[in-house]
Amino acid sequence: MTDKMEAVVKVRPEEGGTEIQEVPVPEPGPRDVLIKVKVSSICGTDVHIYEWDPWAQGRIKLPRIYGHEFAGEVVEVGREVQHVKVGDYVSGECHIACGHCYLCRTGNAHICQNVKIFGVDVDGIFAEYFSVPETNVWHNDPDLKPEYASIQDPLGNAVHTATATDLIGKYVAVLGAGPIGVMTVNLAKIFGAAKVFAVGRRNRYRVDLAKKVGADLGLLSAEDDVLSILAEETKDRGGVDVVLEMTGNPKAVDMGLKMLRPGGELVLLGVFPQPATLDLSKDVVFKYITIYGINGRLMYKTWYQMKGLFKSGMLDLDTVITHRFRFSEFEQAMAAMRSGQSGKVVMYME
Amino acid sequence: MTDKMEAVVKVRPEEGGTEIQEVPVPEPGPRDVLIKVKVSSICGTDVHIYEWDPWAQGRIKLPRIYGHEFAGEVVEVGREVQHVKVGDYVSGECHIACGHCYLCRTGNAHICQNVKIFGVDVDGIFAEYFSVPETNVWHNDPDLKPEYASIQDPLGNAVHTATATDLIGKYVAVLGAGPIGVMTVNLAKIFGAAKVFAVGRRNRYRVDLAKKVGADLGLLSAEDDVLSILAEETKDRGGVDVVLEMTGNPKAVDMGLKMLRPGGELVLLGVFPQPATLDLSKDVVFKYITIYGINGRLMYKTWYQMKGLFKSGMLDLDTVITHRFRFSEFEQAMAAMRSGQSGKVVMYME
Amino acid sequence: MTDKMEAVVKVRPEEGGTEIQEVPVPEPGPRDVLIKVKVSSICGTDVHIYEWDPWAQGRIKLPRIYGHEFAGEVVEVGREVQHVKVGDYVSGECHIACGHCYLCRTGNAHICQNVKIFGVDVDGIFAEYFSVPETNVWHNDPDLKPEYASIQDPLGNAVHTATATDLIGKYVAVLGAGPIGVMTVNLAKIFGAAKVFAVGRRNRYRVDLAKKVGADLGLLSAEDDVLSILAEETKDRGGVDVVLEMTGNPKAVDMGLKMLRPGGELVLLGVFPQPATLDLSKDVVFKYITIYGINGRLMYKTWYQMKGLFKSGMLDLDTVITHRFRFSEFEQAMAAMRSGQSGKVVMYME
Amino acid sequence: MTDKMEAVVKVRPEEGGTEIQEVPVPEPGPRDVLIKVKVSSICGTDVHIYEWDPWAQGRIKLPRIYGHEFAGEVVEVGREVQHVKVGDYVSGECHIACGHCYLCRTGNAHICQNVKIFGVDVDGIFAEYFSVPETNVWHNDPDLKPEYASIQDPLGNAVHTATATDLIGKYVAVLGAGPIGVMTVNLAKIFGAAKVFAVGRRNRYRVDLAKKVGADLGLLSAEDDVLSILAEETKDRGGVDVVLEMTGNPKAVDMGLKMLRPGGELVLLGVFPQPATLDLSKDVVFKYITIYGINGRLMYKTWYQMKGLFKSGMLDLDTVITHRFRFSEFEQAMAAMRSGQSGKVVMYME
Repeated sequence: MTDKMEAVVKVRPEEGGTEIQEVPVPEPGPRDVLIKVKVSSICGTDVHIYEWDPWAQGRIKLPRIYGHEFAGEVVEVGREVQHVKVGDYVSGECHIACGHCYLCRTGNAHICQNVKIFGVDVDGIFAEYFSVPETNVWHNDPDLKPEYASIQDPLGNAVHTATATDLIGKYVAVLGAGPIGVMTVNLAKIFGAAKVFAVGRRNRYRVDLAKKVGADLGLLSAEDDVLSILAEETKDRGGVDVVLEMTGNPKAVDMGLKMLRPGGELVLLGVFPQPATLDLSKDVVFKYITIYGINGRLMYKTWYQMKGLFKSGMLDLDTVITHRFRFSEFEQAMAAMRSGQSGKVVMYME
Repeated sequence: MTDKMEAVVKVRPEEGGTEIQEVPVPEPGPRDVLIKVKVSSICGTDVHIYEWDPWAQGRIKLPRIYGHEFAGEVVEVGREVQHVKVGDYVSGECHIACGHCYLCRTGNAHICQNVKIFGVDVDGIFAEYFSVPETNVWHNDPDLKPEYASIQDPLGNAVHTATATDLIGKYVAVLGAGPIGVMTVNLAKIFGAAKVFAVGRRNRYRVDLAKKVGADLGLLSAEDDVLSILAEETKDRGGVDVVLEMTGNPKAVDMGLKMLRPGGELVLLGVFPQPATLDLSKDVVFKYITIYGINGRLMYKTWYQMKGLFKSGMLDLDTVITHRFRFSEFEQAMAAMRSGQSGKVVMYME
Repeated sequence: MTDKMEAVVKVRPEEGGTEIQEVPVPEPGPRDVLIKVKVSSICGTDVHIYEWDPWAQGRIKLPRIYGHEFAGEVVEVGREVQHVKVGDYVSGECHIACGHCYLCRTGNAHICQNVKIFGVDVDGIFAEYFSVPETNVWHNDPDLKPEYASIQDPLGNAVHTATATDLIGKYVAVLGAGPIGVMTVNLAKIFGAAKVFAVGRRNRYRVDLAKKVGADLGLLSAEDDVLSILAEETKDRGGVDVVLEMTGNPKAVDMGLKMLRPGGELVLLGVFPQPATLDLSKDVVFKYITIYGINGRLMYKTWYQMKGLFKSGMLDLDTVITHRFRFSEFEQAMAAMRSGQSGKVVMYME
Repeated sequence: MTDKMEAVVKVRPEEGGTEIQEVPVPEPGPRDVLIKVKVSSICGTDVHIYEWDPWAQGRIKLPRIYGHEFAGEVVEVGREVQHVKVGDYVSGECHIACGHCYLCRTGNAHICQNVKIFGVDVDGIFAEYFSVPETNVWHNDPDLKPEYASIQDPLGNAVHTATATDLIGKYVAVLGAGPIGVMTVNLAKIFGAAKVFAVGRRNRYRVDLAKKVGADLGLLSAEDDVLSILAEETKDRGGVDVVLEMTGNPKAVDMGLKMLRPGGELVLLGVFPQPATLDLSKDVVFKYITIYGINGRLMYKTWYQMKGLFKSGMLDLDTVITHRFRFSEFEQAMAAMRSGQSGKVVMYME
């Protein structure tokens, strides 16, 4: 094996500022494994890093190899690694948790306060090789398509959100029709929802994707009177039962609370650049609403749920993955992702 | 409206002992409604009454009009009835609960200790007309097929059982492939189970129905080595995640506990004529198993879940309903039900 | 029995505007019961009506007998009443629910959309007699002190809030030390909390009451650096586990979210006159917080919980009830309630 | 530090068969820590090993140092240990879980299928020193009495059992008044139960301990008509709400099911040498009962709950710990434990 590799590196603190460079192959530590990447995919977080927005400016130290969604093969293991071996077909959880804090020891490793995220705080996977702790490795079933395996990070966000509460026989609104929103629509439909309402802002392409994977109705808040339409659709219950929020727009939260029936539930996955102003009395307390903040994936309950869902044959990921590029076409892949005329964008190493 | 009607009456304390007779149309009390039956369906309970088994001998007072699964139209309402009106398209919950006991007042009306069941303790619905309290009436959506509306009682048993615990991404075994077992297989599949295993005893016809509605595997315990096969199928988790028991055979409970992985769950809907002998230490305590006894339908959460599932379009009830008769062909309908070569058997009034 | 009675009537749309008048004894309808009030108590809602704040101006039609917390004796029952009889020792749930809407039929009668509240939408209990539907009557155990029986409405709010999530072994902060806050502190302590932190704004008297019923620490946000103190007290978990909010101050919600550890829970009972501006990303989504809006009492699970808690002998209500008046001293009782130097204020009819 | 130490060793396959011997101090591996024992306590499991019952004969390889309940001080750490240091005041979880199986990765390490238990499968803590993996170490608060710290293993069983379902305002029966039963009675009382009923068989001493820590009633099944008495005590609900079973007697399970109200819950911690014969239809399915098999302690949620309960000051462990010996008096300590006239028996090293 060579000791040099190609990697996508954020090198300059500016929009773009990314180069494919030749860098050293990382050396795995005693409890780490070295993985050869087969397929990777682009996350919204990667777009933030590419665009160098305020969040990225405050968090990312340059130069940094980014990316955290992948499927690959183990090519080397540290001397104390016990449960992973060379040749294993794997993906990985990007939250590197400490394992000993209160949260890690009570089933909440996904919000470990000492967490490091690869592709953010340490080098990531837009590269030929990368190294991760053994405990973050996830073994894929051999017959899982690598492009499905690569998108388990965002699919896991969707599963975590869609399993925050029971959806069986319920009216479910999914706010936001980005790739995770579309996957969430698909999940809500196959988890037994009565009706799934997909709500975007202006992007017809993405709401149409949501309809292809199961939305009974696709609305655009810039064009449709969403609250009136959903009030009519759900009038036998006095509103939507569950809202799954993945826009990060404070106005969507307000709209989500207003479309809920009394006793309804709001699940928040979106990340909000601005504070939200909410009428807590009318829209939460008197309506007896429950709100769940969600992030990451349960380690590793959510991953096992995904493994089971792949076996079920019920997921429609072929509709969600709209663009495929070679790794060397990173800039084109990123452009497709930023265009809004895309679902998930994946890149193949060879 | 005439004051006489045709009804299926259990008249003699013996197998069969049933006649279609002309009897008076019941008079609804001030809080009751009179319903004209359009479609009815035959439950296992009706078979017990027909066959006059020990349970029926101990419970049923003759003569008795039996039957409790129906869809029909309201033709008269008592003077204090507030929320039902003539012409409404309805079905009904057969548990007439008292409404004021501890159980009724804490969301458990389905196990009300003062319950009366129509078709068992009071006259039922195998008749042109019958009367029920307003509170037991369920309004069907106008576009719901009457034969689907009629089988909400057993479908509700299946929904209650299949929603006792979360099935998403799980290995689910359904023991028993009678009509409720087949519906439960269908539900498990559309609630996101990884794999659904249908296990019958000898009846290939019914296990084949289970496969048609979504079972990944159909096994017969008289022919297949069920425990070995399922251990192999589920070896990545050390066993089945959830067992849904609907045979009423104590041996099936023992087998169910043995196929479960540690931490698994057993849901019991079947009714057991004999006691079961269980190795509680090995199969429940050390394995950290949870067991749920289930009966009836939550009043009315389960009914709303069904309403939502009908809207979802995901149910396959056309496969479950295998036989259709006229009301006057009651004996043939009962014979079809008892043959074992049937799913649900429905009867049309005209 | 006479046909006239004394009652506290809000007669004029202004602060105060209340008179004790002689009015007709109400006639119970066929499903109602007439109750002779023994003890009543004053709620914050009654203060709003007395002070004629914007909420009261928008909701209350004059003249109105107010009050809804009571213990009394049944003196007459309507002809269709089945489970209540003359001489019964009773209190009552003030939410008169419709019984047939989606919420009522799925265990959420306390948020029935057709609800009427007595003492608000219909005449209340600051009177010698009043009439309620049979279904709203609650039978007290014979040995329950009438002044305890009278405060089951606010105690039920506290129980509903304190049972929204499990408190065993947890750090619990109660924001607001009004009567319900003080009762909630008492409950948290006897439900197994590790530490209970009572946080008021300026009112030392009430925080001292909270300490008497079990608070490990009593803080005043106007004087103490609450966030620093609680961060230090809970540093082994990274923050408070559960915040129970009963101030209705948007700033308290913001403070509550900030004192929570990741994965913590916020329960909102307070009623907010202004909207709250919240940093949802930092304080809810990334922290994986769950927020529960609460109001009323579960009908009737919460009431049975109270019945059980009275039996347990663990409640300290004698500390919570600080003032006792005669019914004819209504103005003094209201003044005590408004002074802030009080817990619960009760009035005896004779 | 010397390289020899005193230890209690099971040397011969017979009742007793135990000697205090001088043996080598164990060498901690790279991820292990060496602990000097300050206080240890005797578990029922130790009695099984001492008495050499069929379970012990099948599981224990001789010679074996036994014991697994302790408080001590860390005196040496392996070179890769990260979060434990010399001088730490610690106890430990006796289940050494593999950390990578399905159960470990989904929050169920306590039922890890690759588990080893110290004092059973590997050498235990009835010794001056012993070695455990770092991940099994639990840091005690500095002000926790060592004898309380030592009994966290059985207290954790009690907490795990008593938190399997909500007890607030409920009628709770605890079957079995051994040390864990007594601790469970204490917990039920401080978790808000309406009434706690302690039921033993013949042992008056232990039922009296249960009453001292909070049981409202102490019954002996050999003398009292338990079912009639509890039916009377709980008649307003139709039976006991929750039964916590810790006898391991199949007859107690049957009795437990019969004392439950419909919709009640049975939690099983006891270990059953014989199978149980249960009337599943009448006592589980028609009664809508839930049964939870429990063992071990949640790793480490249960430990954090205990930490919180110690802080609360509500536990009464001084009543539970009835006998104190020196380590050299092991035979007397074991005799006290076997006498039945004891609660917890602890041993001090110096």
